[in-house]
Amino acid sequence: MALSSKYYLEVPAASLDNNKGEIDRINSLLEDFTGIKRIDWPIDLIISSLPVIRSSNGQLTVTACRDGDRLTVISVESGDTRSFHFGIAIDLGTTVVAAELIDLKTGDTLSSEGEINAQVRYGEDLLTRLHFASQGGVNELKSALLDTINKLVDITCKSSGIPSNQISAASIAGNTSMTHLFLGLDPSSIRHEPYVPVVNHVPVLNASEVGLKILPYAPIFIFPSSGSFLGGDLISGVLASGLTKSEKISLLLDIGTNGEMVLGNKDWLLACAGAAGPALEGAVAECATRAKPGAIDRVVIDPTTLEPSFSTIDDKPAIGLCGSGLVDAIAQLYSVGLLDSTGRFVLEKHTTRWQKINHRIAYMLTEERTGNNLPPIYITEKDIQNVLRTKAAMVAALTVLLNSVGISIEEVQKVYTAGSFGIHLSPESSIAIGLYPKLPLNRFIQLGNGSLLGARRVLLDASNIDEAKRIADKITYLELNVHPTFMNLFRSAKYI
Amino acid sequence: MALSSKYYLEVPAASLDNNKGEIDRINSLLEDFTGIKRIDWPIDLIISSLPVIRSSNGQLTVTACRDGDRLTVISVESGDTRSFHFGIAIDLGTTVVAAELIDLKTGDTLSSEGEINAQVRYGEDLLTRLHFASQGGVNELKSALLDTINKLVDITCKSSGIPSNQISAASIAGNTSMTHLFLGLDPSSIRHEPYVPVVNHVPVLNASEVGLKILPYAPIFIFPSSGSFLGGDLISGVLASGLTKSEKISLLLDIGTNGEMVLGNKDWLLACAGAAGPALEGAVAECATRAKPGAIDRVVIDPTTLEPSFSTIDDKPAIGLCGSGLVDAIAQLYSVGLLDSTGRFVLEKHTTRWQKINHRIAYMLTEERTGNNLPPIYITEKDIQNVLRTKAAMVAALTVLLNSVGISIEEVQKVYTAGSFGIHLSPESSIAIGLYPKLPLNRFIQLGNGSLLGARRVLLDASNIDEAKRIADKITYLELNVHPTFMNLFRSAKYI
Repeated sequence: MALSSKYYLEVPAASLDNNKGEIDRINSLLEDFTGIKRIDWPIDLIISSLPVIRSSNGQLTVTACRDGDRLTVISVESGDTRSFHFGIAIDLGTTVVAAELIDLKTGDTLSSEGEINAQVRYGEDLLTRLHFASQGGVNELKSALLDTINKLVDITCKSSGIPSNQISAASIAGNTSMTHLFLGLDPSSIRHEPYVPVVNHVPVLNASEVGLKILPYAPIFIFPSSGSFLGGDLISGVLASGLTKSEKISLLLDIGTNGEMVLGNKDWLLACAGAAGPALEGAVAECATRAKPGAIDRVVIDPTTLEPSFSTIDDKPAIGLCGSGLVDAIAQLYSVGLLDSTGRFVLEKHTTRWQKINHRIAYMLTEERTGNNLPPIYITEKDIQNVLRTKAAMVAALTVLLNSVGISIEEVQKVYTAGSFGIHLSPESSIAIGLYPKLPLNRFIQLGNGSLLGARRVLLDASNIDEAKRIADKITYLELNVHPTFMNLFRSAKYI
Repeated sequence: MALSSKYYLEVPAASLDNNKGEIDRINSLLEDFTGIKRIDWPIDLIISSLPVIRSSNGQLTVTACRDGDRLTVISVESGDTRSFHFGIAIDLGTTVVAAELIDLKTGDTLSSEGEINAQVRYGEDLLTRLHFASQGGVNELKSALLDTINKLVDITCKSSGIPSNQISAASIAGNTSMTHLFLGLDPSSIRHEPYVPVVNHVPVLNASEVGLKILPYAPIFIFPSSGSFLGGDLISGVLASGLTKSEKISLLLDIGTNGEMVLGNKDWLLACAGAAGPALEGAVAECATRAKPGAIDRVVIDPTTLEPSFSTIDDKPAIGLCGSGLVDAIAQLYSVGLLDSTGRFVLEKHTTRWQKINHRIAYMLTEERTGNNLPPIYITEKDIQNVLRTKAAMVAALTVLLNSVGISIEEVQKVYTAGSFGIHLSPESSIAIGLYPKLPLNRFIQLGNGSLLGARRVLLDASNIDEAKRIADKITYLELNVHPTFMNLFRSAKYI
């Protein structure tokens, strides 16, 4: 059953023999439909619905939210409107907020959009924003995020031709800080010992309470977090993977701005988190860019000519390297012998692609393209070292996780990749440089945006709310920074 | 358990080993206390409570409302405040709104006040107000009623020295029309065939939703009605009487502006309603007044001298006759032989008290008291006829009720009297003129304001909410106006 449900009712006319009130008669039918005795209405909705009820000739569609043993009515429409039943899934990314407008009747995605989180104006990275929040900026950050979300509501509705007040449910996942800011809660405590959030399990709220411009009483489910470092976005990804449904041990690699991994099965879940992302994000490599149109996302280097070829997102003129292009490039440089296993260029191998940029040697993917204002795109040893550090962190983290439960990597049956980088990375290249564990390719499953996918699952089947809660309660967090062997593992993993 | 509950918690400090959020840690303790897993908070309350939580050194008192399998937190205070736990019971009378401020810890009544319903400015009687409502006056009537209620909150709080935001629960009973107006619902449909209210069973709301100026998230229980003619005030009275707890058959006589009676026991309930009150109210008898200071409430006539003596409420100078004084006077006139059984004066009996007023003979209770501006107080045959009509309506209604279930009046074990007249009427005089059935005096129990009493019961024990719902669902309404024998019974009962 979806997060909101629509019921078509044919309400018998009042008569002298039946003293039930107008609302009580509707509730009677809802009880017959659902078996639920306890039916709540906001009083404002009773008042605003009366004209609709009275002019409907008894033919009504009631939208309600089922929550345990009670049903809350959230909208009343005249006639049979069951085929207009929509929800929105939202991923509160630190950089990009993504939304999918879903037809709750068919399960179809009607529109899928992303928007830069307007909070970036207060700081590209999360730490800057958290600092701003702690200086009294919570409400500004909340407004910025809400503006972004409401813009996405607007865009997805417009592109689907659906009025926003027809969206009768929302499901939202974000990291712990984003979730706090969305709710107007000061996330400062998250970043200071003992690293405790204000709240992990947020009650189901309604749209008007949180300022979301959809049907005012629409239920808003917000994924629970499990402490400061494991956010609702990760819980949502775990839910989406189905990892907790199987006896087999699986691994979820969520590689976004933060890198998180979860190892486990239906009985146990072990997670760790670290700053995996920056090396793969716009911020680190010199020619890096977000995965947007024009970003180089695939690179191949001819082993004979040592000349590169590449593709860009949407086939637009190349503007930079996104994470997957960077990983491809490193894997290819290594494969054709232009890079050694310590991450140093093999300059003895001759190619016209070696060029000096700012006193350092770079491998040129494009030349200066005068006239069209596009910069040259290249890769330096420093870029490679950054990626290798990320890779080392991932490998060390995975090793710690595996060792903690005493299993070998071969016992991991499925590897789900998610997060903004997980979507684009080539498993082959990622395995080649050691970012992904060396397992048969058929064990890798690309989830895409796991956070959004889990949010979508809850929209279409609200029983997943309990499952999300179970996951958040069950997951054990392993703090890598205090782990005795992590640093050794990290140092020894800084090679391809 | 009271409608709201207070829990004193000693919340352990956060540590690196416990990633529970600040709110989640409180919820954990609440779950330990109550066994309830589902704990909701309004998001605004989380935000506004954080400074309290953080400055409390872990010692907190949480006020919450338990509702089935969930608990809604409504307030957080620093330290142990369990001894400050208050609720307000309110009777939405058409003429007078009454309120009692209750200490929910001890059950003590801290303050009890009444105020004229400010709606009277739109019409003394209900029908005039309903007409005004149907002309778009709903919100004005709602505001007037709310002003009266909030004034009572203010008065009772001031007289008890309690801040109004310490009132964490309210329980409200009123007739169906008053309940509608309190909620801002147009009651017009109540008075037109098929006489169907908008809603009988109102969900539990909170104070800010309805505009009550107590703790904003305090739960507001509103007694359900059972159709247009049996209001929440009557359901509340039935609850207060305990009539539905016994196998013995009992009768509830609610004699306010409307007269209602309920016959039944734990298995069945039969009710009827009619305009019993007007004859006993300020509106009908020439010298009548509401039961307020100065109203003559007891009358004795000396059988030898035929001279009257009387008492007034609060021993103030006599200003008029209230219902109980009127009933006493009639009973005494009949008893000393100044009145015959048809309600005519026996003028052959000589007394200086007979005087002609406006061309009609009256029995003078007081003479013109020049100098102090007080009018003479007397009683006319017309006044007596009015009371006898009311009495006839009561007798006929009771006979119909008894006949419907085939029992005799002697089988009625208890007679509960309630309503604004039920409080003051002398059972002896009421039996003497036939207003009350002829039963041993020890079967009569004065409930007082049954509506307020039932509201108080719910405040102190919220399990009565379910009982009130059961009563409203179980009660059967007998429509007297369409009853074939009612008019005959009425005509034959117009004698003392």
